[in-house]
Parts: sequence; structure tokens; C-alpha cells
Amino acid sequence: MKKQYAASLILLLALVGFAGPDSGVHKVRRYRQTHELTLLTEYMQFLAIPNVAADSANLRQTASFILGMMQKRGIKGQLLPAKTPGVPPAVYGEVRTPGAKRTIVFYAHYDGQPVNAAQWASGLSPFKPQLTSAALTHGGQFIPMMQAGETSGPDWRLYARSSSDDKAGVMAILAGYEALVQSKQRPGVNIKFFFEGEEEKGSPHLSEIVEGNRALLASDLWIICDGPVHQSGQKQVVFGARGDVNVGLTVYGPKRPLHSGHYGNWAPNPALALAQLLASMKDSTGRVTIEGFYDDVIPLTAKEQQALSRVPNLDAAIQKELSFARADGGGQNLSELINQPSLNINGMRSANVGAQAANVIPTTAEATLDLRLVLGNDWERQVAKVVSHIRRQGFFVTTQEPTDAERARYPRIVRLTPHTGYNAERTSMDLPLAQEVVVAVQRTSTQPVVQVPTSGGSLPLHVFKKINATTLTVPVANYDNNQHAENENIRLGNLWDGMETMAAIMQLK
Amino acid sequence: MKKQYAASLILLLALVGFAGPDSGVHKVRRYRQTHELTLLTEYMQFLAIPNVAADSANLRQTASFILGMMQKRGIKGQLLPAKTPGVPPAVYGEVRTPGAKRTIVFYAHYDGQPVNAAQWASGLSPFKPQLTSAALTHGGQFIPMMQAGETSGPDWRLYARSSSDDKAGVMAILAGYEALVQSKQRPGVNIKFFFEGEEEKGSPHLSEIVEGNRALLASDLWIICDGPVHQSGQKQVVFGARGDVNVGLTVYGPKRPLHSGHYGNWAPNPALALAQLLASMKDSTGRVTIEGFYDDVIPLTAKEQQALSRVPNLDAAIQKELSFARADGGGQNLSELINQPSLNINGMRSANVGAQAANVIPTTAEATLDLRLVLGNDWERQVAKVVSHIRRQGFFVTTQEPTDAERARYPRIVRLTPHTGYNAERTSMDLPLAQEVVVAVQRTSTQPVVQVPTSGGSLPLHVFKKINATTLTVPVANYDNNQHAENENIRLGNLWDGMETMAAIMQLK
Repeated sequence: MKKQYAASLILLLALVGFAGPDSGVHKVRRYRQTHELTLLTEYMQFLAIPNVAADSANLRQTASFILGMMQKRGIKGQLLPAKTPGVPPAVYGEVRTPGAKRTIVFYAHYDGQPVNAAQWASGLSPFKPQLTSAALTHGGQFIPMMQAGETSGPDWRLYARSSSDDKAGVMAILAGYEALVQSKQRPGVNIKFFFEGEEEKGSPHLSEIVEGNRALLASDLWIICDGPVHQSGQKQVVFGARGDVNVGLTVYGPKRPLHSGHYGNWAPNPALALAQLLASMKDSTGRVTIEGFYDDVIPLTAKEQQALSRVPNLDAAIQKELSFARADGGGQNLSELINQPSLNINGMRSANVGAQAANVIPTTAEATLDLRLVLGNDWERQVAKVVSHIRRQGFFVTTQEPTDAERARYPRIVRLTPHTGYNAERTSMDLPLAQEVVVAVQRTSTQPVVQVPTSGGSLPLHVFKKINATTLTVPVANYDNNQHAENENIRLGNLWDGMETMAAIMQLK
Repeated sequence: MKKQYAASLILLLALVGFAGPDSGVHKVRRYRQTHELTLLTEYMQFLAIPNVAADSANLRQTASFILGMMQKRGIKGQLLPAKTPGVPPAVYGEVRTPGAKRTIVFYAHYDGQPVNAAQWASGLSPFKPQLTSAALTHGGQFIPMMQAGETSGPDWRLYARSSSDDKAGVMAILAGYEALVQSKQRPGVNIKFFFEGEEEKGSPHLSEIVEGNRALLASDLWIICDGPVHQSGQKQVVFGARGDVNVGLTVYGPKRPLHSGHYGNWAPNPALALAQLLASMKDSTGRVTIEGFYDDVIPLTAKEQQALSRVPNLDAAIQKELSFARADGGGQNLSELINQPSLNINGMRSANVGAQAANVIPTTAEATLDLRLVLGNDWERQVAKVVSHIRRQGFFVTTQEPTDAERARYPRIVRLTPHTGYNAERTSMDLPLAQEVVVAVQRTSTQPVVQVPTSGGSLPLHVFKKINATTLTVPVANYDNNQHAENENIRLGNLWDGMETMAAIMQLK
């Protein structure tokens, strides 16, 4: 079958499926429309439970809340603890479908990125969900909770940490299942639910949990419900994800903070040394200048390249919305650049700035780097390239607080904070079940589903490979959700659409 | 008179003055020794009043407290408000000495540098003064308040914001006067007290106050009691101070924080742009690479150069204590480097680091620079050199939040936060009254007084020049006082010695 013909056929099949008002999709939608208040109330309670990595008590409470959400829907749930004590457990549930030949695991994660509440907009707080009439950046106003009988607008936003990333995944999956069953439909596959609690930490114990429950987690496919849909608003099926590793850097200056007048010009300033080090890592087009950084990359297949070429290019519009004059990457587009390894400065800090700044020579300067990896990169090898580069800039590299002897010996010292990383993975675009998922998702939308070889974001797909699982990512969140930052939000239309997407996949035979 | 002979004579005179147990110095000391508990209690109450620039209510309370300190000592005090409303007033007091031919104004400032309480060591808090048995960095332990009849140790430290900079100045002056009078001695000059409340903000309204009170402030000399004594512990008389101006920089990235995976490699990172900008400002020896930065400097006179050559060189010992392997300045010593203009990064910040770091491309990156100036530099011209340099690095420079049109047009944008600065000043080393002060200070110490042409730190001496006043700086604080930073402290021995220094100057005829 010619490729273009295949794509047209998928769209055709989907439009047929979408056509009638009594289709499965419409039944799910009608159920949701009459139950929005209940669903939204539950979701806001879910979002109100803090879920940052440092707060293990609240992570346990979040897991318990999900068990409750399952119980309400008649799903028998259980916690899957890691062997390592103190680790947030995965939440597991199962629905057997009589006669089903295949089993699909639906994955989302319930932990969230760290928060700095002071950085959130006035009136917002990470764990006090707030509804608005539209995105705050587009004139949205705070609105009260909807009333019984009222229907939400699709552009309403709900602001809270993890509202998009990735409690939205948990909610879309469980509410999608509920809508399917309550609208007198039934799943076509056996369904397993798997909700992780350490994704934003790099999933350090996911292997333990997954490998310790091989039989329980046996499946034909994992659907990873995480990340945003395409910037165009079109739904996406994503075949892989970049790997990821963080690197923390601390540069040392004088042992105590010094008056910048009495010691300025003489005592070395660690903020300057860090600036010089970071500046040496990229050129003015944003290309990484670390030796060998772009080596090891396995090129895309012809099919993947073709899929990439069909991804709508909205770069100009997004750039306009984000208000910057020149993108990095020397003219390559966003989709192309996502298929390359990256180096990003997540944050940088030395002493204080603005009203808190004092006239001092700081004692240390810190930065956190984020390295994204593509197929072929190894996370440890990628970090080693960065370390070699730092050494070539004249720095002594240690992973401990430097000793006095080291401080006395080395003019420039970097302490590296070790982080665990993982590599990129990709599922073949030739896999029949994967194409069936594309068709199912297409049935829920009048717009073509975008097929993406690799997500820019990262997911611990390598862990699933250890139990020979196949994964596909099917995201639900809006692209402008501020995930990982202050003012995270979900567009309600995306949450509701996500229910339909998940229900449609559950109806695969 | 040959210069070396002159120096020996000063030391000789001083040792004669210091010799007898009934000398003025010893009377002041004995008074202090029997009143330490009262003095320390008062000082701790004084330190407990917050005095940061943003907190005008507490600055007014600090000024009132000083009025009370004066009243207790029989000094009639008054507030000298600026014409501009809302400005912390100067606190003024006066003591006329029958038959006195000369008038000396004693200056200190009661406001403090900003605080970030989270950065202070465990158990310390900026406005809860805490006594320790020695510097915490040298094994000091927390100790309770001294009891009646007990004497403090000279190496005890008192930790609080402004404990050294510069409530110590206010305390040394007023307690020195008290000890002088209470030990049945009398001043030899008319004394005026002048305590400023905006020094750490760059004294933006000091001119208004000083010029508005020309007659009241008529004098032969101002003694500026601020800053640290020499690192050797030797007392100092300082003939000038560097000028100072801060420059705030904000670099802009995408308008909202972005997921570093979905947009990394494409959306420009403002932390990198700031790092590249800062890195371009200095070379690896710390020399400023901004065009013309070292122009305009008026060289030291032969006498000043000679004084400089006599300043004890403790660079190796200080460097060891501060634990760094290589000083900036390409081999020049600290005293020499202080006589050059400087550029220091006070602080740097973009998004978050460490446990708070998230995988984002930040929206902005900020830095605060501190430029110190020497005689001949003009602060506005020095800032203009920095701005020209920033433009040459390809940045559009604005003093406002950039508009969308500017963001769309300029790939690199810096917002400059304007600050007011002031120039350096120096008093001639040939001035007879200045040399009399050196002799008076020398009487209080068995170690030679260090004469310094220019302090590394800055003082608004230019303001006093407007009313044709002559200034000399006579500091009291220990050099390792963490002034301007967390864990600021005063060594009690320095506070007590400072009382003796101030009392001795009051006894000049």
C-alpha cells in the first residue's frame, strides 16, 4: 500500500467512524456533557493534593486518592510498591473484557514538577486549583466553580501544578473509561491501569516496580498518556521520546561572601566563572560546541522522515506568540531540532538579584543543565562529554564539596551533582497495532491525527522495554500549558477530548 | 621633615600617649569594662530593629531609637528630614565644648543591606542578635547573654544585620562619648553627630539633607565611622573611598516558560544569553575587557603611593583563609587593585536551581553588577561604557519592559535597571588636621595605624564636598564581618576598641 494512500485511508475510516450522532464517540461526549460538574469537582480535589517529589506523605495521599477514583468506577485497584522503602508506589488497576484478545496498559504519572509558589501569578497557587474563562495570558478572568446544569466552555482553563502534567492523564483515562461504561458501551480489550509516582524525578524506581510485576503487567501495548497535543490543537500519536539527564553544577569562589568594594578586582567571582563556563558550551545559534555532542545519533528511517515532513509547521505562529525574534537552530524547524540531542540551562543562581542584591562577591554559583537525548545517545556517555568539556575549560571536577586542599590547589572548581538519566526509545511506525491506535484516535477528531516519530519531551520508555513492552504516547494536554513551570494549566476542552481519545483506544478489538 | 621620620614620630607620640595607666584611653577602657552588660544590652536592642531600605516604618523606629540613645547620654538630638517625603531622616546631635576652636562631625549610617534570611546559618536570624564565643567559621559556639559582673572576651562575636555595617559606627561613637564624659574627661572639640538612613541605597537624598542644613553642619572635619579596620587587625585612617554604581540587567527569552524537551534546541535560552554577555565582560585574569574601562583614572600622588607601599600585605594569609587558589588581577596585590575601577557580579538568577530546578527554558535571566570607581571616573560615563559594550555584543538595550514589537524585532534584549551612583573622593594626606587624627588614633593602639589613600568600599563623600567639608574615614569593624551578606557579625573587641578610637578623636584640641 502506498504511504499517502494509507494516510488517506486512515482519515477516511476515521471520518466514517466519527460521522453518526450515535457513534461511540458521541455517546462518551454526551455522558461527559451531563456530568461535567461531578468530574470537575473530583478533578479539583485531585489537583489540591500536593504532589512534589520532596513531599512523600502527600504523594502517598495522592496514590490513595487515585485508588478511590478507581473504586468509584468499579475498578479493583492496588498499590504496587517498589522494593526500595519510601518510594511512592505505582497505582494499578485491571478490567478484564470477556472475549478480548489483546491487553492494553494505560499509563500516566501522578507526581509533579517542583514548585516555587512565589513565581505563580497573583491569585494562583500551585495546589489551589483555579478556573479561568480563558488562558490568563489571553485575557482570561478568574471564574467561580460551575453550577449544576451549567456546561463549561472548551477554552476555560484550570490552573494548578500537574493540571496538565500529568494528573490530566490519570483523569482522562479513568473518566474516559467511566464514560464508556456508563454510556452503555464496552471495552474491546483487556484494560490495565498503571499510574506512576516518580516520573518527574526521572523514574528511578520504575524498573523495580515493572520488573517485579512482569506477569501482572503482561500486555500487547502501553498507551502513555502524557505531554501535549500538537501546537495546532491536532491530536497526536507519538512513537518515541527523547531520553533525559540533568546535570547540576556548582562553581566555587571565596569561602565566605566578601564586600565587593574591599575585595573586588582581587577575589575571584564564581558567578563570572560559571558564566564563562556556560557561555563556552553553545555558540550564538544555540548549537552545542561540546566535542562529540552530536555523535552517536541513529538517523530516522525513511518512514519516520516522511512522517516528520507531514507534521504541521507552526513555528512562525508559536514564535510570534512566545515573542522572540530569532529561534536557535540555524534555520532548522522545531520538529527537526527535536530529533537532535539538546543542552538547556534550566536555571542559574548566584547570591541575589534585584531588590535583594547586595554588593558582594558570592561564594558559589550554581546552574542546572538538562540534556535531552535521541536514539543512539547514551546518557552516561553524553554526561561524560560535558564533563570532558568542563575539564578542557580548566576546571577541576568533583562530585563532593571541595576540600580546603582542593580549593588551595585548583583555581577553578566545579562540583557536579550526579543525576540518573535514561536513553531515548522509538517504536516502529510499521507496527500494525500502532496503526490501529492511530485509526481509533482519528475517529474522535475531524482534524488529521499528527504522527510524530519522537517527542521532544522524555518518558522512561526504556523501562518498559525491559519487559518487552511496546509503547505509544497519546497525549491530551494543550501545548501552552506551562508544564514544568509556574502557572501550569489545562484547557478544559483538551481534558474532555482526552476522555474521548482514551475511550476510543479502549474500544480497539 | 622626611617621610619615614614623620611616621616614626607619630608612632613615638602615640606610644607616649598610650603608656600610662591613667591615660585617657585607659579611663575610657575601664569605664567600658565595668559597663559592658549595659552597653551590650542596648546594642542588641538596637540591632533587633530591622533596618533594610524597603522597610520605612522600621527605619523610622531605628532613628527614634538613636534619639533615645542620645538622650540617655545627655545629647540633645533631632531628626533632619529630607525635602522628599518618605525618606528616612538623618539623626543629628550636638555637644558644644567651651573654648573649643574646632568642630568635628561624627558620621555613621543606621540602615543596612538587604537580607535573605534563608541564607543565614542555622540558629541565626538577621534581626535576632546572637552572641558566640568566636567566629562561627572558626569553631565559635552560641553563648547566652553575659551576666552582671562578667566581662566579655575580645573574640566574642555578635551576629546580626548591621552589627558591623554600620550600627557599630553609631554605637562606637555614642558609647565612646559616654565613656569619655563618664570617666571624668572632656572633649577638646565641638562635637556633632550625624547618622544617615540611606547609605546602603547609595545615599540618594543625603545631598538634600546636608545642603539643607549647611549652617548646622559647619565643621572642620567629618569622621566617617564605617567599614572594617585592616585585615591585620591594625587600626586604619582612610583618606578616600571608591565611588559606586549598580547596574541591573535582565535578558529576555520566550514570553512564557517552556518545557525544555518540547522546545529545547529551538526557543532561545535567556540564561545562556546572559552568561555569554557576562563572560564577554572580563578575561580569565579578571581584567575588565570593556573598551575604555580603565581610562579616566587620576594616578596616586607620590605620598599616596608611598602610604600604599606601607600598607601591610596580608594577601597570602587572607587568600588562604578564603580558600581560593588564584587571585584575580594578574599578580597585583589587593591594595593596588583597590585603586582601580572594578566590575563585580553581585548576583545572577534565572528560574531555579538544585531541588527547585525544573526542566524549563526560562523567560528571563537577571544579574546585578556593581561598578566601583576611583578618582577621575565618572559614574555615568562608567555605566555608559558598559552599555556600549552590551550593544556591541548585539543586544538591544532598553530601560523598560520590552514591548511585543521590540521582542519581535531584536533577537537579544537587555533591560537595564537604572541606579544612581556617585564618584570617588580623596582627602589630601598633607592636611595637618588629618595627621592630628592619625596621631590621636595611634594613641589608642600599640600597633602602627595604617594610612590608606582609598578604601575599597564606597562612601558618599561627594555629598560632603558640596558643603566644602573635609572627610576622613576611621573604621572600627573586624575585616571578616560578612558585611553585605548573610551571617554579618562584629567582633566585640573591635566594638570596644572603636569606642576608644572615637573618644580619642573627640579629645583633639
